[in-house]
Order: sequence, then structure tokens, then C-alpha cells
Amino acid sequence: MLDVISEREDVPRERLSKAVDGGSLVLVKNARRDIDPLAIGEGVATKVNANIGFSPGELSVELELEKARVAVDAGADTLMDLSVGGDTSSTRKRILKETSVPLGTVPIYQAYAGRGLEFTLEDYLKEVESQCREGVDFMTIHAGVTLEGVKHAGERIIPVTSRGGCFLAAWMRKHNLENPLYTGYDDILEVLREYEVTVSLGDALRPGCLHDATDKAQLHELKVLGELTKRAWEAGVKVIVEGPGHVPLDQIQRNIELQKKACQGAPFYVLGPLVCDVGVGYDHITSAIGGAVAGMYGADFLCYVTPSEHLGLPDVKDVREGVIASKIAAHAADVVKLGRRGRDDEMSRARFNLDWDRMFELALDPDVKKRYKGDKKGGECSMCGEYCALKVYKGE
Amino acid sequence: MLDVISEREDVPRERLSKAVDGGSLVLVKNARRDIDPLAIGEGVATKVNANIGFSPGELSVELELEKARVAVDAGADTLMDLSVGGDTSSTRKRILKETSVPLGTVPIYQAYAGRGLEFTLEDYLKEVESQCREGVDFMTIHAGVTLEGVKHAGERIIPVTSRGGCFLAAWMRKHNLENPLYTGYDDILEVLREYEVTVSLGDALRPGCLHDATDKAQLHELKVLGELTKRAWEAGVKVIVEGPGHVPLDQIQRNIELQKKACQGAPFYVLGPLVCDVGVGYDHITSAIGGAVAGMYGADFLCYVTPSEHLGLPDVKDVREGVIASKIAAHAADVVKLGRRGRDDEMSRARFNLDWDRMFELALDPDVKKRYKGDKKGGECSMCGEYCALKVYKGE
Repeated sequence: MLDVISEREDVPRERLSKAVDGGSLVLVKNARRDIDPLAIGEGVATKVNANIGFSPGELSVELELEKARVAVDAGADTLMDLSVGGDTSSTRKRILKETSVPLGTVPIYQAYAGRGLEFTLEDYLKEVESQCREGVDFMTIHAGVTLEGVKHAGERIIPVTSRGGCFLAAWMRKHNLENPLYTGYDDILEVLREYEVTVSLGDALRPGCLHDATDKAQLHELKVLGELTKRAWEAGVKVIVEGPGHVPLDQIQRNIELQKKACQGAPFYVLGPLVCDVGVGYDHITSAIGGAVAGMYGADFLCYVTPSEHLGLPDVKDVREGVIASKIAAHAADVVKLGRRGRDDEMSRARFNLDWDRMFELALDPDVKKRYKGDKKGGECSMCGEYCALKVYKGE
Repeated sequence: MLDVISEREDVPRERLSKAVDGGSLVLVKNARRDIDPLAIGEGVATKVNANIGFSPGELSVELELEKARVAVDAGADTLMDLSVGGDTSSTRKRILKETSVPLGTVPIYQAYAGRGLEFTLEDYLKEVESQCREGVDFMTIHAGVTLEGVKHAGERIIPVTSRGGCFLAAWMRKHNLENPLYTGYDDILEVLREYEVTVSLGDALRPGCLHDATDKAQLHELKVLGELTKRAWEAGVKVIVEGPGHVPLDQIQRNIELQKKACQGAPFYVLGPLVCDVGVGYDHITSAIGGAVAGMYGADFLCYVTPSEHLGLPDVKDVREGVIASKIAAHAADVVKLGRRGRDDEMSRARFNLDWDRMFELALDPDVKKRYKGDKKGGECSMCGEYCALKVYKGE
């Protein structure tokens, strides 16, 4: 298994093996699923996740499957199915059958959707086990949000922004009990271990706006996530840790360093981070800015954000734009983090040679050729036309 | 004049006045033009420029005017008309009449377009003076590229990428003479001073790909630009300095620091920088990533890049996308550089309150409302539908 990854990632087998043993690299795959495992973490290329899934107002399974295909074609390394409210099990089964990238889910959604705030740890464990059996490869488990953490969130503009986090905060408030995913964490780990499912420790208290970034609530949860990381390792469960959210540009480096320290080098999976709150309609861009910087400083896995974020469910076009924006961020990070500039240099040579076919081959967007508006007369594009700078320079 | 700017920029008059005297802030406006001057530089909001202009293959003046209007509506602070080949004078006059933001040009284009490599310093000076008389507010003058600089560029993948730079490099090679804009710099300054036109010192040797970033050729030209900045100040001419280009993420901070030092704090006007070379079709995003980071570290003025960069002339939609992407980058930078988070915090409050009208008012994109796909039933969007996280949290 490591040999295949070593070749694909262009990293010596020994280095991968050492990182896997230390927990800084995970190989994501459910034991029951027949796909290549995906390496996420130290030393390998930064990966990109695309969220799909319906909500009660828009229940088309076919549309979500189409989004899944488009996301993978555009370069998504994983998918998360965030469907809630309808027949999520059939949807998952079809996605698992029809795609070959790791699939993630958030089991709290269905535990809540079935029973509202009356769900119990047992209901939750049943949902987790059922999804493990189906072949889900990684699961967001919001075990780090505690009664104390929620208390700290009271000082925020947006106390809780994570959907799972809101369900759990409301549950804790209603029952005046500690988070059942925290108290029942060992039971959850036992199920995950059996199926070799990776736990993605959810950050229910991730900041939902710049104002709330790197605050007490976030840092309290991060500390708990550090403890939960250790317990998962001790239980033989693979771990990645989720992170913000909305973070001003100058706090991103510190956020990565804090996570790596608190979670002893466990892979970091960030949503965004979005570097401003007013980019609505273009949050794939606010997110690509934050994602590139986060990746450069050591984030290992970027969750895409689409132009539709903060507005509604993405359509197929939004999904595509979101994946490409995140792929750009991940690659810009890897140029620095891993010194991976080879493809860029090849592109630059093709550009100097006005070799359009090669440029289109090397582009991150496999469909970019459709956008080319030049007539290719003599090789120059319509930007300069006959005054093509490169041709003038070369004396052509 | 400073009072209006002080109010608009929310910066005390005394601070503006001091920065203008020191050269770290320029007020861009041609003496003949009846528009508000635009402040670019230290202590004020990061500004965004949109390039428009036709090329020999696509000579529609109406289309370029439409692009100019769309760019300004989307929030561009300045326009540069890069038209070359047709009746550029009539086009400029119409843009100057029909818009009220500062207009920039690159006079070398028309000096070359009229005479090819046979143009002389006198031809160039005539073009500069004619454009000054028309009311152009700032001009890119590629006086920093010298015989020695071009020699250093030989080690690059793309020796020269700037259009004006290519014309001049070819001219120097053909005539075996020093750059006439360098040898005739004092004459050029004399004309600019008379009309209070700002010189934008062009970086003809800006890196055209990651491989060539921060290399000998670029640093040699930057040193010359530092000397030219000083000479412009001595001649009573306002200066901004242009910068790269294509730069890996981790070299951006150093690039800004080098420019600020070499040019004694003169405002820095960056094109991008693009943080990878393979994002073609999405270079408004590669550029927004670099622009945000550059702005955070002190770049004062961002030249937009559109999705059409490296492919051909942008259409109206590309222009709009390019402006919004750059506005996002500039704002993300100002959140850090100037502590300007007020609008973001208001947005976050509106978001928590599910106040859609207010969210649309606060969005950087004035047209974002058109993208909203929710039905607004009860205030939630289609992302979670009835499982709206915020409503669950609030117990609604």
C-alpha cells in the first residue's frame, strides 16, 4: 500500500512509514471499501475536499451524484456527503459505489434529523456503525465541544456556526448534560477502529467570523481536541483534526502552529479559512486566499468553499469553481511547502514558446481550453495580438 | 483637497499631509482633469486598478467603454487604458470624459505602434505630452530597464514578460544603445511635472513566472527604480513604483520589504502577484491570493488580473470578476494592515440575525443579491433548510 503512495506522492517509502507511525500522516480508507487509500498529512501534497449533499428543501439524489462526479473530475481528492433530512443511506451507498475517492460524513446530522434534541448516545453510535458498515472512510465527530467551551462562546458575534456544533450546543443546553460525543468518545472510537475509519475531530466552535477568531472558545476546544487526538491514537484510530473557519490573514500562521502543537502533529483539515466576511458570492476566493496561506504554514487538507457559501446549496457550477479554487490554493502552498514547482516551470516554458496545447495540458483546470478566445494565428493570443510581447522580444 | 480625502479615508489630515510630504502617499490626478484626487499609499485603503483597452485584433471602442463602466461599478479605484494599435487618442478622451476615476496609460505602446523599433526619445516625449494634455492621471514609464538589467534576464525561463519591456529590450538590442526612457528620464519628468501627472515606474523585468522571481534581473531593476524615485521627487513629480508579477507565496513579504527600502517608502503598485503558474483560466484567484498577502505586508495598490489572463483580452464578465477578486484581496489586507474590520463585524451580526437585506447591503459585490437562491422562508437559506444551524442554536 505504501509503495503505491510513495510513487504517487513522490516521497520515499521510509519517510511515509515514519510519518504514519508518528500520526502526522494518515491513510484514509474504510477496511470494507475497495479504493486506493489517500495519504493526508506531513510530507505529501495538500489535499482538497468537496462537500456535497442535499438539505430538506432540495432533495435530489441525482443532482448530488452529478456534483460528486463534477467535483472528482475537477480534482477533488475526497468528498463529504453532508446530506440531511432525506434518504441519506441510499445516497451514501450510491456515492460509495459510483466514485472512488474517500468519502466523509457527519453522523450527528442524521442522529438529529431523526429525533431532534431527543437523540441519545446510543442513537448516535447506531448511526456511526451503520455508516461504517456502508463503507464511509472518515467521519467528523464533534467530541471536542464541551459545556465549558460553549460558555466561552457567549462573547462572540456568532457563538456557534458549525451545524453539528449547533445541534450539540442546543442538546447540552436542553438536557444540561455534557456533550454525549465527549462522554461516549471511547465507544465511538471502538466502532471506528473496527472498520479502520479515520476520525476527523470536528471543531464545533470554529470561528464563524473574523471577530471571533482565535478566541477563548476556539482555543478551549483545540485543547480538548489535542487530548482526543491522543486518546484516538491510543485506541488505534487514525486522526485528522478540523480547524477554522474565518480568520484574519495575520492570524493564520499562529492557528496552524497552535493546532500542530496541541495535537502533536496530527494532520490539520481546515475549512477556508475565509480572510474576510464581506466576500459573499465569492467566498471560494476569500477561502482560497486563506487556504493557500494555511497550506504554506502546514495545513494538510483544505475543505473547499463554493461561490454559494452563505447563500444556499451550491449548484454544479459552484461545485466546480469551488474545487478549482481550492486546488489552486493547495498547489500554491505545495510550491512552497514541498518545493513542487516542476509543473509551473514546464508551464512557463510552454508559455514562452507560445505552445498552447502544452499549456492546456499543464493547466490545473482540465477544461480551460474552452475559455481560450484567441485565433492562434501565428501563436499569439488576443491580449496583444500582433504586438505580442514575446514575439517582439524574440524578434519574430 | 486633503480634507475630503481625510474624511473619505477616515485618516487624520495631519497624517495624510505628512505622508504626502514624505512621498509615501500620492494624490493621483492630472492638473487638467476635473475629478477627485485618489490617495494611494501609506495609511489609506489599498486601491484596485482595472486594465481595459483594445488590441489590434479587437478594436471596439464601445466594448472597452462598457468594460470601463463595469469595472468602476464593481469598485475599481482607477482604470488603465492599455489600448494599442487603433485610434487610442479618441478612446482615451471618451474614457476621461465618461468616467471619474484616475486614468493611467503606458505611452510606450503608441510610440512603438506608430513606428516599430524606429521610435526615438522625441517621438516618445511627444506621445507623453499629448496624453498629459488629454488629462491622463498616471503613466507607466519603463525607465528602469537598462542594458545591464536585460543581460541578467538571460538566465530566465521568460526573459521579459512586460509588453513595454519587450519593446524596449528589442529596441536596445537593435540599436545597441541604452534605454531612451532612462537616458531621457529628466525630460520625461519635466513634462509630467507640468501636468501634475504621477509617474508609475514600470518594472519591465518583473518575473513572468515563479522560476524567475526575486532574481538578479528583477533586483537590478528595483535598484534603478529606487534611484529614479529619488530623481522624480527632486523634480517635483509624484511617484508610485510597479512590482511583480509571479512570486511564490513565501517570497512576497521579502519583495515588499525590498521595494519599500530601495524606493524609500514610495507607494508600491503590484500586478498580482500570481502565486502559481498553472492556474490559467482562474488567474484572478492566483492573483487575489498574492495580492492579499502583498497588501497585508504593505503593497498599496493592486492591479487586477482577470480570469482571461494568459488567454486573451477579457470580456465584460471577466472584468467584473477580476475587480471583485482584487477588491476582496485589498479588503482582506486592510483588515490586517489598517485594522478595518468594522464592515465585516456588521456583516457577521447581520448573518447571525439572518438579516438578508443587510447582508446584501454590506457585501463587497453590489450585485450579490442576484445569486441568492433561498426562498427566505423564515429567514434560513437552502444550505441547511429547516435544519438551519443558527435557528437550532437560538432555539427557534
